[in-house]
Amino acid sequence: MSNDNFFGRVSENQDIKGFVMALKYDRAGLVTVVVQDALTGDVLMLAHADRKAVRKTLETGVMHFYSRSRKKMWRKGEESGNEQLLENLYVDCDGDALVAQVRQVKAACHLGYRSCFSNHVDRNGRVINVGRKVDDPRKMYGKKKSARGS
Amino acid sequence: MSNDNFFGRVSENQDIKGFVMALKYDRAGLVTVVVQDALTGDVLMLAHADRKAVRKTLETGVMHFYSRSRKKMWRKGEESGNEQLLENLYVDCDGDALVAQVRQVKAACHLGYRSCFSNHVDRNGRVINVGRKVDDPRKMYGKKKSARGS
Repeated sequence: MSNDNFFGRVSENQDIKGFVMALKYDRAGLVTVVVQDALTGDVLMLAHADRKAVRKTLETGVMHFYSRSRKKMWRKGEESGNEQLLENLYVDCDGDALVAQVRQVKAACHLGYRSCFSNHVDRNGRVINVGRKVDDPRKMYGKKKSARGS
Repeated sequence: MSNDNFFGRVSENQDIKGFVMALKYDRAGLVTVVVQDALTGDVLMLAHADRKAVRKTLETGVMHFYSRSRKKMWRKGEESGNEQLLENLYVDCDGDALVAQVRQVKAACHLGYRSCFSNHVDRNGRVINVGRKVDDPRKMYGKKKSARGS
Protein backbone atom coordinates (compact mmCIF):
# COMPACT_ATOMS: atom_id res chain seq x y z
CA MET A 1 0.00 0.00 0.00
CA SER A 2 3.00 2.33 -0.34
CA ASN A 3 1.27 4.35 -3.05
CA ASP A 4 -1.55 5.02 -0.63
CA ASN A 5 0.80 6.31 2.05
CA PHE A 6 2.33 9.69 1.36
CA PHE A 7 4.55 9.45 4.43
CA GLY A 8 6.15 6.33 3.01
CA ARG A 9 7.15 8.25 -0.11
CA VAL A 10 9.04 11.15 1.49
CA SER A 11 12.60 11.13 2.71
CA GLU A 12 13.72 12.18 6.16
CA ASN A 13 15.62 15.18 4.89
CA GLN A 14 12.94 16.46 2.58
CA ASP A 15 13.32 20.06 1.40
CA ILE A 16 10.62 22.33 -0.05
CA LYS A 17 11.37 21.26 -3.61
CA GLY A 18 11.21 17.59 -2.67
CA PHE A 19 7.95 18.07 -0.82
CA VAL A 20 6.37 19.92 -3.73
CA MET A 21 7.46 17.12 -6.07
CA ALA A 22 6.14 14.36 -3.80
CA LEU A 23 2.55 15.63 -3.80
CA LYS A 24 -0.01 13.95 -6.04
CA TYR A 25 -1.49 16.51 -8.43
CA ASP A 26 -4.66 16.03 -10.45
CA ARG A 27 -4.79 16.27 -14.26
CA ALA A 28 -4.85 20.05 -14.03
CA GLY A 29 -1.71 19.99 -11.86
CA LEU A 30 -3.54 20.92 -8.66
CA VAL A 31 -3.98 19.76 -5.08
CA THR A 32 -6.95 20.73 -2.92
CA VAL A 33 -6.32 22.99 0.07
CA VAL A 34 -8.62 23.19 3.09
CA VAL A 35 -7.99 26.43 4.94
CA GLN A 36 -8.73 26.26 8.63
CA ASP A 37 -8.71 29.01 11.27
CA ALA A 38 -5.71 28.22 13.48
CA LEU A 39 -7.45 29.74 16.51
CA THR A 40 -11.02 28.41 16.28
CA GLY A 41 -10.68 25.34 14.03
CA ASP A 42 -13.41 26.72 11.73
CA VAL A 43 -13.03 25.73 8.10
CA LEU A 44 -12.66 29.07 6.31
CA MET A 45 -12.48 28.13 2.64
CA LEU A 46 -11.53 25.51 0.10
CA ALA A 47 -9.10 26.30 -2.71
CA HIS A 48 -6.58 24.74 -5.07
CA ALA A 49 -2.83 25.07 -5.40
CA ASP A 50 -0.39 24.26 -8.15
CA ARG A 51 3.28 23.39 -7.55
CA LYS A 52 4.31 27.04 -7.59
CA ALA A 53 1.61 28.08 -5.11
CA VAL A 54 2.63 25.32 -2.67
CA ARG A 55 6.26 26.40 -2.93
CA LYS A 56 5.47 30.11 -2.51
CA THR A 57 3.26 29.34 0.51
CA LEU A 58 6.09 27.51 2.27
CA GLU A 59 8.74 30.05 1.27
CA THR A 60 6.75 33.12 2.32
CA GLY A 61 4.44 31.81 5.06
CA VAL A 62 1.51 33.48 3.30
CA MET A 63 -1.15 31.41 1.52
CA HIS A 64 -0.91 31.23 -2.27
CA PHE A 65 -3.41 29.43 -4.47
CA TYR A 66 -4.18 28.75 -8.10
CA SER A 67 -7.32 30.25 -9.55
CA ARG A 68 -8.98 27.86 -11.99
CA SER A 69 -11.17 30.62 -13.43
CA ARG A 70 -8.40 33.18 -13.84
CA LYS A 71 -5.85 30.47 -14.72
CA LYS A 72 -3.06 31.91 -12.59
CA MET A 73 -1.51 31.80 -9.17
CA TRP A 74 -2.77 34.34 -6.65
CA ARG A 75 -1.88 35.38 -3.17
CA LYS A 76 -4.85 35.39 -0.83
CA GLY A 77 -5.49 39.01 0.15
CA GLU A 78 -3.44 40.50 -2.66
CA GLU A 79 -6.25 42.95 -3.35
CA SER A 80 -8.50 42.81 -0.29
CA GLY A 81 -5.65 42.80 2.22
CA ASN A 82 -7.29 39.82 3.91
CA GLU A 83 -4.20 37.65 3.99
CA GLN A 84 -3.79 34.21 5.51
CA LEU A 85 -0.62 33.64 7.50
CA LEU A 86 0.39 29.99 7.62
CA GLU A 87 0.64 28.46 11.09
CA ASN A 88 0.56 24.73 10.39
CA LEU A 89 0.43 22.64 7.25
CA TYR A 90 -0.74 19.04 7.01
CA VAL A 91 -0.85 16.66 4.07
CA ASP A 92 -3.20 13.70 3.83
CA CYS A 93 -2.46 9.99 3.54
CA ASP A 94 -2.35 9.86 -0.25
CA GLY A 95 -0.70 13.25 -0.76
CA ASP A 96 -3.33 15.00 -2.87
CA ALA A 97 -4.83 17.33 -0.27
CA LEU A 98 -3.54 19.85 2.26
CA VAL A 99 -4.93 21.37 5.43
CA ALA A 100 -3.50 24.82 6.14
CA GLN A 101 -4.13 26.26 9.58
CA VAL A 102 -3.86 30.02 9.25
CA ARG A 103 -4.18 33.35 10.99
CA GLN A 104 -6.92 34.95 8.94
CA VAL A 105 -6.95 38.71 8.50
CA LYS A 106 -10.63 39.75 8.70
CA ALA A 107 -12.76 37.87 6.15
CA ALA A 108 -11.87 34.73 4.21
CA CYS A 109 -15.06 34.98 2.12
CA HIS A 110 -15.49 37.37 -0.79
CA LEU A 111 -18.92 38.23 0.63
CA GLY A 112 -17.29 39.63 3.76
CA TYR A 113 -18.01 36.67 6.01
CA ARG A 114 -15.32 35.26 8.25
CA SER A 115 -15.79 31.84 6.59
CA CYS A 116 -17.03 30.79 3.16
CA PHE A 117 -18.97 27.99 4.86
CA SER A 118 -21.54 30.34 6.34
CA ASN A 119 -24.67 28.53 5.20
CA HIS A 120 -26.01 25.89 7.57
CA VAL A 121 -28.08 23.09 6.03
CA ASP A 122 -30.54 21.23 8.23
CA ARG A 123 -31.61 17.61 7.76
CA ASN A 124 -34.59 18.75 5.66
CA GLY A 125 -32.37 20.63 3.24
CA ARG A 126 -33.24 24.08 4.59
CA VAL A 127 -30.45 26.59 4.38
CA ILE A 128 -29.84 29.34 6.94
CA ASN A 129 -27.10 31.93 6.72
CA VAL A 130 -25.19 31.84 10.00
CA GLY A 131 -22.16 33.83 8.81
CA ARG A 132 -20.39 36.51 10.80
CA LYS A 133 -19.90 39.53 8.55
CA VAL A 134 -16.51 40.99 9.42
CA ASP A 135 -15.76 43.04 6.31
CA ASP A 136 -17.57 45.06 3.66
CA PRO A 137 -17.22 43.45 0.20
CA ARG A 138 -17.52 46.86 -1.47
CA LYS A 139 -14.50 48.10 0.45
CA MET A 140 -12.65 44.80 0.00
CA TYR A 141 -12.59 44.96 -3.77
CA GLY A 142 -13.62 48.47 -4.68
CA LYS A 143 -15.28 48.52 -8.08
CA LYS A 144 -13.39 45.57 -9.53
CA LYS A 145 -15.83 42.76 -10.11
CA SER A 146 -13.19 40.37 -11.28
CA ALA A 147 -11.34 40.14 -8.00
CA ARG A 148 -13.68 37.62 -6.43
CA GLY A 149 -12.04 35.82 -3.56
CA SER A 150 -8.69 37.56 -3.61
CA MET B 1 -23.09 38.74 -7.69
CA SER B 2 -26.08 36.41 -7.17
CA ASN B 3 -24.30 33.55 -8.94
CA ASP B 4 -21.51 33.86 -6.43
CA ASN B 5 -23.90 33.63 -3.49
CA PHE B 6 -25.44 30.23 -2.89
CA PHE B 7 -27.71 31.60 -0.19
CA GLY B 8 -29.26 33.97 -2.71
CA ARG B 9 -30.21 31.01 -4.89
CA VAL B 10 -32.14 28.90 -2.39
CA SER B 11 -35.73 29.37 -1.32
CA GLU B 12 -36.91 29.68 2.25
CA ASN B 13 -38.81 26.41 2.17
CA GLN B 14 -36.08 24.37 0.54
CA ASP B 15 -36.46 20.60 0.79
CA ILE B 16 -33.74 17.95 0.35
CA LYS B 17 -34.41 17.62 -3.37
CA GLY B 18 -34.26 21.38 -3.85
CA PHE B 19 -31.03 21.63 -1.89
CA VAL B 20 -29.41 18.83 -3.89
CA MET B 21 -30.45 20.56 -7.12
CA ALA B 22 -29.15 23.97 -6.01
CA LEU B 23 -25.56 22.80 -5.46
CA LYS B 24 -22.96 23.52 -8.13
CA TYR B 25 -21.43 20.27 -9.35
CA ASP B 26 -18.23 19.95 -11.36
CA ARG B 27 -18.03 18.31 -14.78
CA ALA B 28 -17.98 14.90 -13.16
CA GLY B 29 -21.16 15.75 -11.23
CA LEU B 30 -19.41 16.09 -7.88
CA VAL B 31 -19.04 18.51 -5.00
CA THR B 32 -16.11 18.42 -2.57
CA VAL B 33 -16.81 17.46 1.03
CA VAL B 34 -14.58 18.42 3.95
CA VAL B 35 -15.26 16.10 6.87
CA GLN B 36 -14.58 17.63 10.26
CA ASP B 37 -14.67 16.07 13.71
CA ALA B 38 -17.73 17.62 15.42
CA LEU B 39 -16.04 17.34 18.82
CA THR B 40 -12.47 18.50 18.18
CA GLY B 41 -12.73 20.51 14.95
CA ASP B 42 -9.97 18.38 13.39
CA VAL B 43 -10.27 17.95 9.64
CA LEU B 44 -10.63 14.18 9.22
CA MET B 45 -10.71 13.69 5.47
CA LEU B 46 -11.63 15.15 2.11
CA ALA B 47 -13.99 13.36 -0.24
CA HIS B 48 -16.46 13.92 -3.07
CA ALA B 49 -20.19 13.46 -3.32
CA ASP B 50 -22.58 13.18 -6.24
CA ARG B 51 -26.26 14.20 -6.06
CA LYS B 52 -27.30 10.79 -4.77
CA ALA B 53 -24.64 10.77 -2.03
CA VAL B 54 -25.70 14.23 -0.81
CA ARG B 55 -29.35 13.12 -0.73
CA LYS B 56 -28.57 9.84 1.08
CA THR B 57 -26.41 11.69 3.62
CA LEU B 58 -29.28 14.03 4.52
CA GLU B 59 -31.93 11.29 4.48
CA THR B 60 -29.96 8.85 6.65
CA GLY B 61 -27.69 11.10 8.73
CA VAL B 62 -24.74 8.91 7.79
CA MET B 63 -22.04 10.17 5.42
CA HIS B 64 -22.21 8.92 1.83
CA PHE B 65 -19.65 9.78 -0.83
CA TYR B 66 -18.82 9.04 -4.45
CA SER B 67 -15.63 7.12 -5.16
CA ARG B 68 -13.93 8.44 -8.27
CA SER B 69 -11.71 5.36 -8.54
CA ARG B 70 -14.49 2.82 -8.02
CA LYS B 71 -16.99 5.00 -9.89
CA LYS B 72 -19.84 4.45 -7.45
CA MET B 73 -21.47 5.81 -4.34
CA TRP B 74 -20.29 4.41 -1.04
CA ARG B 75 -21.24 4.73 2.58
CA LYS B 76 -18.30 5.60 4.80
CA GLY B 77 -17.70 2.62 7.07
CA GLU B 78 -19.73 0.17 4.98
CA GLU B 79 -16.91 -2.35 5.32
CA SER B 80 -14.71 -1.07 8.14
CA GLY B 81 -17.60 -0.13 10.40
CA ASN B 82 -15.99 3.29 10.88
CA GLU B 83 -19.06 5.31 10.10
CA GLN B 84 -19.49 9.07 10.22
CA LEU B 85 -22.70 10.34 11.79
CA LEU B 86 -23.70 13.76 10.51
CA GLU B 87 -24.02 16.48 13.15
CA ASN B 88 -23.90 19.69 11.12
CA LEU B 89 -23.70 20.44 7.43
CA TYR B 90 -22.52 23.69 5.89
CA VAL B 91 -22.34 24.81 2.27
CA ASP B 92 -19.97 27.47 0.99
CA CYS B 93 -20.69 30.79 -0.67
CA ASP B 94 -20.73 29.50 -4.22
CA GLY B 95 -22.37 26.16 -3.47
CA ASP B 96 -19.71 23.76 -4.74
CA ALA B 97 -18.27 22.56 -1.42
CA LEU B 98 -19.63 21.18 1.84
CA VAL B 99 -18.30 20.96 5.37
CA ALA B 100 -19.76 18.02 7.29
CA GLN B 101 -19.21 17.97 11.03
CA VAL B 102 -19.48 14.35 12.13
CA ARG B 103 -19.22 11.92 14.99
CA GLN B 104 -16.43 9.68 13.73
CA VAL B 105 -16.40 6.02 14.73
CA LYS B 106 -12.74 5.16 15.37
CA ALA B 107 -10.55 5.97 12.36
CA ALA B 108 -11.39 8.14 9.36
CA CYS B 109 -8.17 7.13 7.58
CA HIS B 110 -7.70 3.82 5.78
CA LEU B 111 -4.30 3.56 7.49
CA GLY B 112 -5.99 3.43 10.89
CA TYR B 113 -5.30 7.04 11.87
CA ARG B 114 -8.03 9.16 13.38
CA SER B 115 -7.50 11.72 10.58
CA CYS B 116 -6.20 11.41 7.02
CA PHE B 117 -4.28 14.65 7.59
CA SER B 118 -1.74 13.04 9.90
CA ASN B 119 1.42 14.31 8.21
CA HIS B 120 2.72 17.64 9.46
CA VAL B 121 4.83 19.68 7.03
CA ASP B 122 7.25 22.24 8.43
CA ARG B 123 8.33 25.42 6.66
CA ASN B 124 11.36 23.61 5.20
CA GLY B 125 9.18 20.94 3.61
CA ARG B 126 10.02 18.25 6.16
CA VAL B 127 7.23 15.82 6.86
CA ILE B 128 6.56 14.24 10.25
CA ASN B 129 3.81 11.73 10.95
CA VAL B 130 1.83 13.03 13.92
CA GLY B 131 -1.18 10.73 13.51
CA ARG B 132 -3.02 8.98 16.30
CA LYS B 133 -3.47 5.35 15.34
CA VAL B 134 -6.89 4.30 16.61
CA ASP B 135 -7.58 1.22 14.50
CA ASP B 136 -5.71 -1.63 12.82
CA PRO B 137 -5.99 -1.42 9.01
CA ARG B 138 -5.66 -5.20 8.73
CA LYS B 139 -8.72 -5.65 10.90
CA MET B 140 -10.57 -2.78 9.23
CA TYR B 141 -10.58 -4.33 5.79
CA GLY B 142 -9.55 -7.93 6.28
CA LYS B 143 -7.86 -9.23 3.16
CA LYS B 144 -9.71 -7.03 0.69
CA LYS B 145 -7.25 -4.60 -0.82
CA SER B 146 -9.90 -2.84 -2.85
CA ALA B 147 -11.77 -1.45 0.12
CA ARG B 148 -9.44 1.51 0.63
CA GLY B 149 -11.10 4.24 2.56
CA SER B 150 -14.43 2.59 3.18
